[in-house]
Amino acid sequence: METIMQIWRVDVVTQKLNREPVPAGWEKLGGRGLLARIMLDEVEPTCEPLGSKNKLIYAPGLLVGQRLSSCDRLSVGGKSPLTGGIKEANAGGRTGLHMAMMGMKALILEGKPKADGWWILHLSLEGARWEKADELAGLGIYDATPKLIEKYGKHVAIALIGLAGELELASAGIQNIDKDRIPSRMAARGGLGAVMGSKGLKAIIFDNAGGQNPPQEDPEKYKPIRKSYTTAVINHPQSQVYKDYGTAAMTMMCNTMGALPTRNFSSGEFENAENISGDTMRAMTLERGGKGAPAHACMAGCTIQCSNIFPDANGESLVSPLEYETIGLMGSNLGIDSFDVIGQLNYVANDLGLDTIELGAALGVAAEAGLMAWGDGERALQLVDEIRQNTPLGRILGMGATITGKVLGVERVPAVKGQAMSSYEPRAIKGTGVTYATTPQGADHTSGLTIRAKVDHLSPKGQVAASLNAQLNNAGYDSLGACLFSGFGFSTDPTLVPELVRTIYGWEVSDNYLQDLGKETIKMEREWNRRAGFTNAHDRLPEWMTREPVPPTNAVFDVSNEELDTIFDKLD
Amino acid sequence: METIMQIWRVDVVTQKLNREPVPAGWEKLGGRGLLARIMLDEVEPTCEPLGSKNKLIYAPGLLVGQRLSSCDRLSVGGKSPLTGGIKEANAGGRTGLHMAMMGMKALILEGKPKADGWWILHLSLEGARWEKADELAGLGIYDATPKLIEKYGKHVAIALIGLAGELELASAGIQNIDKDRIPSRMAARGGLGAVMGSKGLKAIIFDNAGGQNPPQEDPEKYKPIRKSYTTAVINHPQSQVYKDYGTAAMTMMCNTMGALPTRNFSSGEFENAENISGDTMRAMTLERGGKGAPAHACMAGCTIQCSNIFPDANGESLVSPLEYETIGLMGSNLGIDSFDVIGQLNYVANDLGLDTIELGAALGVAAEAGLMAWGDGERALQLVDEIRQNTPLGRILGMGATITGKVLGVERVPAVKGQAMSSYEPRAIKGTGVTYATTPQGADHTSGLTIRAKVDHLSPKGQVAASLNAQLNNAGYDSLGACLFSGFGFSTDPTLVPELVRTIYGWEVSDNYLQDLGKETIKMEREWNRRAGFTNAHDRLPEWMTREPVPPTNAVFDVSNEELDTIFDKLD
Repeated sequence: METIMQIWRVDVVTQKLNREPVPAGWEKLGGRGLLARIMLDEVEPTCEPLGSKNKLIYAPGLLVGQRLSSCDRLSVGGKSPLTGGIKEANAGGRTGLHMAMMGMKALILEGKPKADGWWILHLSLEGARWEKADELAGLGIYDATPKLIEKYGKHVAIALIGLAGELELASAGIQNIDKDRIPSRMAARGGLGAVMGSKGLKAIIFDNAGGQNPPQEDPEKYKPIRKSYTTAVINHPQSQVYKDYGTAAMTMMCNTMGALPTRNFSSGEFENAENISGDTMRAMTLERGGKGAPAHACMAGCTIQCSNIFPDANGESLVSPLEYETIGLMGSNLGIDSFDVIGQLNYVANDLGLDTIELGAALGVAAEAGLMAWGDGERALQLVDEIRQNTPLGRILGMGATITGKVLGVERVPAVKGQAMSSYEPRAIKGTGVTYATTPQGADHTSGLTIRAKVDHLSPKGQVAASLNAQLNNAGYDSLGACLFSGFGFSTDPTLVPELVRTIYGWEVSDNYLQDLGKETIKMEREWNRRAGFTNAHDRLPEWMTREPVPPTNAVFDVSNEELDTIFDKLD
Repeated sequence: METIMQIWRVDVVTQKLNREPVPAGWEKLGGRGLLARIMLDEVEPTCEPLGSKNKLIYAPGLLVGQRLSSCDRLSVGGKSPLTGGIKEANAGGRTGLHMAMMGMKALILEGKPKADGWWILHLSLEGARWEKADELAGLGIYDATPKLIEKYGKHVAIALIGLAGELELASAGIQNIDKDRIPSRMAARGGLGAVMGSKGLKAIIFDNAGGQNPPQEDPEKYKPIRKSYTTAVINHPQSQVYKDYGTAAMTMMCNTMGALPTRNFSSGEFENAENISGDTMRAMTLERGGKGAPAHACMAGCTIQCSNIFPDANGESLVSPLEYETIGLMGSNLGIDSFDVIGQLNYVANDLGLDTIELGAALGVAAEAGLMAWGDGERALQLVDEIRQNTPLGRILGMGATITGKVLGVERVPAVKGQAMSSYEPRAIKGTGVTYATTPQGADHTSGLTIRAKVDHLSPKGQVAASLNAQLNNAGYDSLGACLFSGFGFSTDPTLVPELVRTIYGWEVSDNYLQDLGKETIKMEREWNRRAGFTNAHDRLPEWMTREPVPPTNAVFDVSNEELDTIFDKLD
């Protein structure tokens, strides 16, 4: 039986599942773009993010299930409790693939339960089953996951929240298990774990028994294109770098550019950067003989394998994965130069189900407020434990960097639209600063990192164009379910993306399809945000970054507001 | 020497005072309207409220110093750290009068000191003097005020902040001494005390030695109009009510309407309302034989005398004043039915320099989060003491109801644009709900209370018109420096306001001058807010108030968004 894509709509109050035909206007969208469409069509932009009118939406990208390397990604969306705007959080792992195999074009969770109590939602081709999850309540991700796998089988995909989501903290994410059943691929940003918590869901099980990969319209034409793409990905030099060093390869690159956030973004250069570099991580991993090689795929069939399992001194897994953005925010940003300490912080954040970027930024702000000394990992762990204890301080930190700064009285908060910046200093990579400022998502490197754009990163010139190009590409990739690193392959031959879509779906799409998809997506997101009350006044970096030079480049952010406001002119 | 009105501009970094001619376009404005003009001309709307670009502005109204009953009020303004929007906080006391006598059309405080340390700014006709205030740092309002009076003399006016302002908490106000030197007339709302704190100012002394009341253009024509006004105020029946019962007269009126906020706005009727009524307050005051009569004027020459000094069991002052809005927010809203407890809460809030409305609302939200039992005054006092101790919980509460709700995870927050509602339940007085939603000031009854409008307060019909009328009148009064209760006099004869202005200033003004002034003011405020990023999406009551019926009327807020959005159509 061929997989027919449908909308799976679940009312968490009545606990009913409806499987509906895909409405007109939704068919040609997937992932991030489909989220935006659903949000525009169904979610009142001024609604309470944790109230009954918000929806939590899962949507695999258009290429998911097509056995393309790095193209099985999932978009999770809703109104963000962190930013108050539209949110897409993107994750690898196996959830996207299972959804596609089960024929889920999107899963829409709606309503808000009247009573307390936690539930597991089990979805299979037979429908929805609800099971009480009260015995899992309060459990961390690492305790809850094996219990769920034991109960529901090794073949299922799982999306679940930790204590942070249960507590409805605005930096709670939704964790997904990867191809090896490690809970490691989080739809981390924007607090969607809190939205899931508000819906009373501890976990969603995607049981793909009986499902199959979606077909291609023209399998014969599809195969060689798929092969060209795979070859291009494998042959790209960056693929090998990421396989050997993971995203930690970025540490020294950013440090050299003066763009490694250090001590709450007060510097772009960390004197001990080498201790937290890709080289050091690789050497430690190999020396400690962890069970995982440095290279580890998060999705089946991924040839890049940028993920990793970082071992402790005994060779046992300390955490998986340990990514550059965490290394920056929980390492140099806190003055911490030890992978073991960063790994511990990463582990407890994962266990609580918290976005490590937002938490790292919040800790940096707390350090600036005097709550910890720079480099004091023990104290950082204590602060994170406040979140587990649900103390007032813990709740402050769990609400993210912006609230932490407000409540503790710190002006120097590295955030836009209430969301913390990632590990790329925007004064030293100004195109990424433009992205942070203008993306509808709040400060977010995955919306349009420009670190490889051919511009002088310290000059204000050309940054708006560089950011726009990256934003359109990335919104396109996010709609396709393509990992941003799939660009290693796709960028070598611009015909690959449109040809894949033509042969899979039989759609007539333009040669500029990737960016067209990105344009449509961002246009919808901006329209939703406009209705939610966002204006150009929100498309700004924090004031202090326009004034305070960041060593060692001593750059300030000087792309003018007037220029920022032109970025999407051609979309409208 | 005749008083010449000038702009007094103080740079808190260089500690220089410039006295400047009043710029074109500012001459015919005063109080709230002048603040809006200065904000538009000088303050970048997206600036950090506690940063160097925000300004703190004091402006007496146009009628101040004219020996008119109830017309010596002061407007204090700037960008609000609570709402992120434009803010005018209005206060009685003697500051406005002293400013007018010294020729201050407005005092503009700008910049942000680089170093820590607290200052007293002494202003007199001789200029500005700066004195270290480090020995006053951390002192409460009630300890600091006598020291300042002792040092600077009994004749000065004083504006000062408490610990809350020093800690830059977003619900910190600016306290002013009244005609009897009691620190009791706070420019409370919107966190302007934090802005004053960010400028390193513990207190401003207005020494009017050598100053004199500003003149009238046509004193002979002026006198009879002044007399007509005074007679009208005195003869208005409400004047006597307020003199006898103070604003506490509102308790039973609101309770009867189902509009007395009770237990975090979960009801509009309080079973023990009589214990906190105007009758009870008057009886207790008379019985206890306090030093102040129930009737107490906050400004020299006020014939209404709605203020009071509430005595403790020994007849000593417990707090002054005890106003209805505090009684509602710190009484019924917390389930507290004792004037002694409310008075204590009011006293500590005053001493810290906190807005009692915002704090009461924050405590209500905290109670809903489980941090105190309804009616537990001891616990409420402990919670306020957390603010004094500057604990994380104290900082949360001091940031106001909205942040408290966010951090503690409470959806039921009675606030608009980040500012808490006052003691008028908007579902039962829907015109006031329209005001809360649409005023540029954030939820604020003084922007346009409609409780006396001739409408069915429970019907959605006619509320937008009632609110608009009240908003225009009140913006006019706030620009004139006229207490809202001056309306008892002015409303009896619409020629009084324009005639006063004609005879004082010689300006040609229309017969509809009061509302014209209001229109101009609100238009400027909305424009400033628009530039700061506000849209119609922010002109909304909280979602839960549109859904949750409030007993005993079981009304929901059902003025439509579409109608709300028309309110200012005629202004544009």
